[in-house]
Amino acid sequence: MRILITGGTGFIGKQLAQKLLDLNTLTLEGEAPRSIERIVLFDAFAGEDVPSDPRIELVTGDVADPEVIARVTDGVDLVWHLAAVVSSAAEADFDLGMQVNLHGLMLLLETLRKQGTAPRLVYASGFAVFGGKLPDVVDDDTVLTPQSSYGMQKAVGELLVADYARKGFVDGRVLRLPTVAVRPGKPNKAASTFFSSIIREPLVGLPAVCPVRPDTRVYLTSPRRIVESMLLGMTLSPQTLGGERIIPLPGVTTTVADMVAALQRVAGEQATQLIRWEPDATIQRIVESWPSKVQAPSARALGFNADPDFDAIVRAHIEDTAN
Amino acid sequence: MRILITGGTGFIGKQLAQKLLDLNTLTLEGEAPRSIERIVLFDAFAGEDVPSDPRIELVTGDVADPEVIARVTDGVDLVWHLAAVVSSAAEADFDLGMQVNLHGLMLLLETLRKQGTAPRLVYASGFAVFGGKLPDVVDDDTVLTPQSSYGMQKAVGELLVADYARKGFVDGRVLRLPTVAVRPGKPNKAASTFFSSIIREPLVGLPAVCPVRPDTRVYLTSPRRIVESMLLGMTLSPQTLGGERIIPLPGVTTTVADMVAALQRVAGEQATQLIRWEPDATIQRIVESWPSKVQAPSARALGFNADPDFDAIVRAHIEDTAN
Repeated sequence: MRILITGGTGFIGKQLAQKLLDLNTLTLEGEAPRSIERIVLFDAFAGEDVPSDPRIELVTGDVADPEVIARVTDGVDLVWHLAAVVSSAAEADFDLGMQVNLHGLMLLLETLRKQGTAPRLVYASGFAVFGGKLPDVVDDDTVLTPQSSYGMQKAVGELLVADYARKGFVDGRVLRLPTVAVRPGKPNKAASTFFSSIIREPLVGLPAVCPVRPDTRVYLTSPRRIVESMLLGMTLSPQTLGGERIIPLPGVTTTVADMVAALQRVAGEQATQLIRWEPDATIQRIVESWPSKVQAPSARALGFNADPDFDAIVRAHIEDTAN
Repeated sequence: MRILITGGTGFIGKQLAQKLLDLNTLTLEGEAPRSIERIVLFDAFAGEDVPSDPRIELVTGDVADPEVIARVTDGVDLVWHLAAVVSSAAEADFDLGMQVNLHGLMLLLETLRKQGTAPRLVYASGFAVFGGKLPDVVDDDTVLTPQSSYGMQKAVGELLVADYARKGFVDGRVLRLPTVAVRPGKPNKAASTFFSSIIREPLVGLPAVCPVRPDTRVYLTSPRRIVESMLLGMTLSPQTLGGERIIPLPGVTTTVADMVAALQRVAGEQATQLIRWEPDATIQRIVESWPSKVQAPSARALGFNADPDFDAIVRAHIEDTAN
């Protein structure tokens, strides 16, 4: 099996690649297991700690460059399209966000379509497709009202992938991701990056800044669950999915205060004292524009799971980073 | 005032241009009346019966050609973007639909953005953004689930225009149009074209084909109301609109049987006998995927109106074509 992961040197890409290498074979629902021959990790950056394995090929380049996209998609069976300019960066640099998040996806879809083999594609969207006045609980039938260019680009991406799937050009699946925490590594330019920092940094004795109020609510999922969901989203058969190709994922609703309380339960009060509270109105506005209470009945029916609670997410992060 | 109407030789474009010429001035809400200096009608086709007036400039070209779009948008104050490949054509020729309906819009938005003057833009969307399993009544908060590439392209266009407006790049307004009937002129490649043909042709003694069952429901508006709505959508102030830039328009819900009954009341039974019933499963499927019962509270609050009933639409068509 020949696999492409765009955004492949990001933390989800790397964890997904390592999981695939460990599995060695992948079983698509209703099919025989197939060995994993090659995984192309494609990204704008070479990144760090990329899994070292003869089956891994690292390719750096521009996701909107037709030549490089033709090369990395050549003969590919499965594509995870994770490459994206994150929320705050796409808001600050409109052209960059459009280039990567929209034109990059359109180029990838057209390139895969022209191969004529309808490869499988998992597209990572997010709950930033919502914003503004929202119902108390967002569900699979809530209208998309993005209030950021990133959210608009992801909403457009969902529609494009669904239509390419409907037309049979790609076997596309959209996973709408909750905010992912606790992310390993360093902060990035996502408005949501502090949701990881305020746990990750104090756990290793480092200070972290929280730019929002303690009562700020958030809809979260852990890296472990995301990797599981990425695999399930790819392996489910077209028959199981039918025409429903946009899958909002289950997650955990919590507050920043509850996250800090979980940190305290695990690491003591000295850890929570490493958090500096420095309100940032822009980040508060962006984060509050996302839904925090979500029901995801379609995903749950398909077998996608949420973490039990935020304490479990913190414990899993500690286990994963101890390795 | 310098005005651009794309799709300007289509029937809505021509009627809108004639209305603007008749008005001679346009008053934007909260502003003084301004004279209409120039109207560029831009289209892929020269068309017929284009209003003859020194203020009209007819330009033909490709909506996805940067050079021609730069020329027709130069110094423009108001843009009505009506150019589109219609539903059945966009479904049959995916590349053409993407080129005109998506890349054409993206080029227009970028070109207007680069002018730096945030001109006003009215974008014509349609209820084909809906499809599949729908609630009994569609309203302003119903999730978009297009089941055609045309519908996907319009849904994407709505999101793009709304975000360009949010960012202040254009003063964009999206009007989501019901099916327009009775259209003057000839049938086109819209799946909905027969909704006009079955009235228009029998009224002048010509045969027409109806490809759907008599109980097929449809959500309609008249050309008169559309031209009114196009003007209102442009003249409303940014303050009145606020952040709500996607406006689903009110219309009339009727059935094909009721349309034929209205024809009979106006033109007698000999007119209805000119309709040949030739079921077409593809058209039936497409038309049935659109919503037929719609509530449009936001638009009504802003002053947009529907026709009173289908009989009134037929009478207006007869008046308009008698001129």
